[in-house]
Amino acid sequence: MEMSGSIDLNADLGEGFGSWRMGDDTALLDIVTSANIACGFHAGDPNIMVETALAAKARGVAIGAHPGFLDIRGFGRNVIRDTPKRIERDVAYQIGALQACAALAGARVTYVKAHGALANLANVEDDVAQAIAGAVAGVDRGLALVVMPGLPAERAAERAGLRTVREVYADRAYADDGTLAPRALDGAVLHDPGAIAERVRRMVEDGAVTTLSGRRIPVAIDTVCVHGDTPGAVAAAAAVRAALESAGLALAPFAPHRMQG
Amino acid sequence: MEMSGSIDLNADLGEGFGSWRMGDDTALLDIVTSANIACGFHAGDPNIMVETALAAKARGVAIGAHPGFLDIRGFGRNVIRDTPKRIERDVAYQIGALQACAALAGARVTYVKAHGALANLANVEDDVAQAIAGAVAGVDRGLALVVMPGLPAERAAERAGLRTVREVYADRAYADDGTLAPRALDGAVLHDPGAIAERVRRMVEDGAVTTLSGRRIPVAIDTVCVHGDTPGAVAAAAAVRAALESAGLALAPFAPHRMQG
Amino acid sequence: MEMSGSIDLNADLGEGFGSWRMGDDTALLDIVTSANIACGFHAGDPNIMVETALAAKARGVAIGAHPGFLDIRGFGRNVIRDTPKRIERDVAYQIGALQACAALAGARVTYVKAHGALANLANVEDDVAQAIAGAVAGVDRGLALVVMPGLPAERAAERAGLRTVREVYADRAYADDGTLAPRALDGAVLHDPGAIAERVRRMVEDGAVTTLSGRRIPVAIDTVCVHGDTPGAVAAAAAVRAALESAGLALAPFAPHRMQG
Amino acid sequence: MEMSGSIDLNADLGEGFGSWRMGDDTALLDIVTSANIACGFHAGDPNIMVETALAAKARGVAIGAHPGFLDIRGFGRNVIRDTPKRIERDVAYQIGALQACAALAGARVTYVKAHGALANLANVEDDVAQAIAGAVAGVDRGLALVVMPGLPAERAAERAGLRTVREVYADRAYADDGTLAPRALDGAVLHDPGAIAERVRRMVEDGAVTTLSGRRIPVAIDTVCVHGDTPGAVAAAAAVRAALESAGLALAPFAPHRMQG
Repeated sequence: MEMSGSIDLNADLGEGFGSWRMGDDTALLDIVTSANIACGFHAGDPNIMVETALAAKARGVAIGAHPGFLDIRGFGRNVIRDTPKRIERDVAYQIGALQACAALAGARVTYVKAHGALANLANVEDDVAQAIAGAVAGVDRGLALVVMPGLPAERAAERAGLRTVREVYADRAYADDGTLAPRALDGAVLHDPGAIAERVRRMVEDGAVTTLSGRRIPVAIDTVCVHGDTPGAVAAAAAVRAALESAGLALAPFAPHRMQG
Repeated sequence: MEMSGSIDLNADLGEGFGSWRMGDDTALLDIVTSANIACGFHAGDPNIMVETALAAKARGVAIGAHPGFLDIRGFGRNVIRDTPKRIERDVAYQIGALQACAALAGARVTYVKAHGALANLANVEDDVAQAIAGAVAGVDRGLALVVMPGLPAERAAERAGLRTVREVYADRAYADDGTLAPRALDGAVLHDPGAIAERVRRMVEDGAVTTLSGRRIPVAIDTVCVHGDTPGAVAAAAAVRAALESAGLALAPFAPHRMQG
Repeated sequence: MEMSGSIDLNADLGEGFGSWRMGDDTALLDIVTSANIACGFHAGDPNIMVETALAAKARGVAIGAHPGFLDIRGFGRNVIRDTPKRIERDVAYQIGALQACAALAGARVTYVKAHGALANLANVEDDVAQAIAGAVAGVDRGLALVVMPGLPAERAAERAGLRTVREVYADRAYADDGTLAPRALDGAVLHDPGAIAERVRRMVEDGAVTTLSGRRIPVAIDTVCVHGDTPGAVAAAAAVRAALESAGLALAPFAPHRMQG
Repeated sequence: MEMSGSIDLNADLGEGFGSWRMGDDTALLDIVTSANIACGFHAGDPNIMVETALAAKARGVAIGAHPGFLDIRGFGRNVIRDTPKRIERDVAYQIGALQACAALAGARVTYVKAHGALANLANVEDDVAQAIAGAVAGVDRGLALVVMPGLPAERAAERAGLRTVREVYADRAYADDGTLAPRALDGAVLHDPGAIAERVRRMVEDGAVTTLSGRRIPVAIDTVCVHGDTPGAVAAAAAVRAALESAGLALAPFAPHRMQG
């Protein structure tokens, strides 16, 4: 099927810390159109944040804040129970920190996407979803918020009057409630680049995700998330991009890169 | 001597962390006109930062970013050798983080003042001074930068085209080069509220600081720094304010409090 | 009723961090017989740990490791989901760290008591209870483990072949399952020193705790936990000690203080 | 020249943190005889520490504590000025933490070697050298201390009555005072495996290091330090081992691996 219009490809970037690096940022930045940059709570530090913003800007890749729980050691993958008010403030802090780092790089943050356990929690708990949306709205109403469609995060973003961007995951299977199937489940994570690309092509053409049990959930897809932190990830990301392009779609940021000032 | 015009009184605030508190912020906020708010690297966290911004805003107290070295355990008092480029990025990160926390509180950051060992280093090393000034200019040229007069920090701020605000310390003695005398020296830290207030009155009337050795260094004084983290500190701050008022000066922020948006 | 024998009084100590302090350690150390010393994950740092060990040793107060979740900002009060294997290793690390700090102070750690959210989790989840017991057994089988009676923590300690020490809380009400009633519940936390002391006297004389709903749970009580981090806490601790002494009990560490080497 | 006797080969290991890894620990553990395991202050965490201890024990590789400054982000490469007393306590804490992690792995720590900026400082400042030696002696007088010969660290270790182990660096050039030449200097870091191996063979046969300027400093060499965190590092380590073996030396830990218990 030949499609038209454009679609965005996003990936988590700048996920090193201090002397440590994770994933092949340079290769991914040549493939994606939006870079979710870690903000120092689960990964990233000011130096890495500025470097990643510079690299994104040089390629016309949009810059998004990727806030997580305060959990460098756990990479933001452990749920840390805290009050919604404190979560809101943690998220605001991280957005502002990246805004300043992007400014140093002569660029601007145009969107926000929550990371790891924080994002997962916002997909099942309304008050956490609202805390994230509240932080974005409180810091800058012009920022778009990336959400998984049909879940509390999307509803909270809409209630807060934010522009919402709906995303699907290229390499992750879905449960029937529209959340990601737990990694431990058989078939929950796809590894073969060809299979991943084919799956993305189908989701985009159908305008739907199919769950592990075979249920079809219709979704408007604004952006596709690819990963860069596993072996073969870059190949998979490139395959996804090629599949989208050969389906007739243009790859472009949903929230275009903007220069500072 | 009767004077006219206005002067600012600043203090470090929001210097708790998590469950810990330091100093009597509420009392100090009723005395000072500018609040240097810790940004999470040497003290402060997003929750405390928003709370402190709310309290400052409620009293018309101006909000400044108070960045320091990444050293929570050491309260930013240990020098951590790093490259100027990384220091610049650390400072930018902290400013942006506070800007977002202030935004959540419906307020705005209007100035920057470096903390502890970072500030001390900027008073003797040009490249560190320049890193701080570069961070401020890179994030927002509208922010004023508080400096000790006659030292590298002031020159760097001027070179960066920033508005500089000259400060003197109410309770600290000066060395002949215009830096603060080391705390270990006899007489380096004043404790008696009356003596502190009298010393401030004299500095402001003379337009000069007198060093431990008796040398007189003329300075234009825009703001006076008082402390809140020691017993008696609040009394000293109140005495300083009373002395300035009875000398005929109005107490007002050098960079007025601004509402967000 | 006149009783005989001895009982222990324990409190959390050394809960400062860097420049911050919490509670009145000196006053509490004159009252209690066992000091649960924070190990750097939720509070405490090597400097504070050695200072607290020195102060405990000087008073013949026993020294226990008080491990918590890695969560300085949250004071170990947030549950952080991690695997039992990693929790075991975190606990072992903290015990060893305090053993070395105690050694520098010429003293020895004689027991372990988990802190905050970690302790709470071990009271309801077997695998977390077992992780803690496994850490203690793996590091030093001679260490006693403080537990709340009748809960997973006690069973895990017994299965691991550790000496278990049963404790009750002086100022906290109990739920019917033998766990602490949530702080938010009315009457969950007692504040009046007289009421706290009277309650402890009754629990010790009855050999039982009475829950919020009035249910009586028989327990052998080896140690009573008092707190030091709230206003009035020291007065309550002193009242508890006086009540136990006037009931005819001797106050003595369950795991006596030992000199190093 | 045919030599006899044995020599040790040591490397820094377990230098990951949380989700991040550094170097090829598995390959290095098949080459070296002593593993300097990071203790959580500049790298390493309890999970990595236990895993590395398990892997070392499985190969008969001796386990040493590798304490550094509290500086995860900076990998312990930034000097952090603190008092000798606090440095002593930080070092003790780290040794104890690794002892407990080794115990969980059924093994024992047999020596200590300082890391990065802390080690460098101990090579030029007596009080820092003494702080490290004091920590080792305070925790366990049976632990050996690895030092660079002829410098303050060695003298402090001897004064503290510790067994000292003298080491040379395989891939680093020396200044005339016996310290390592700064990395920035031309020729300060060797990269070619053959050149590194040949240099080690010469140092061991001569019983001396030759400085950048050509000066010869006689040293008794107990252990040779190889690195694993750069590309080609494993090849260089293997070449060093082969060169030592072909010179007739047996490779064996200076402080043999011991089982716990």
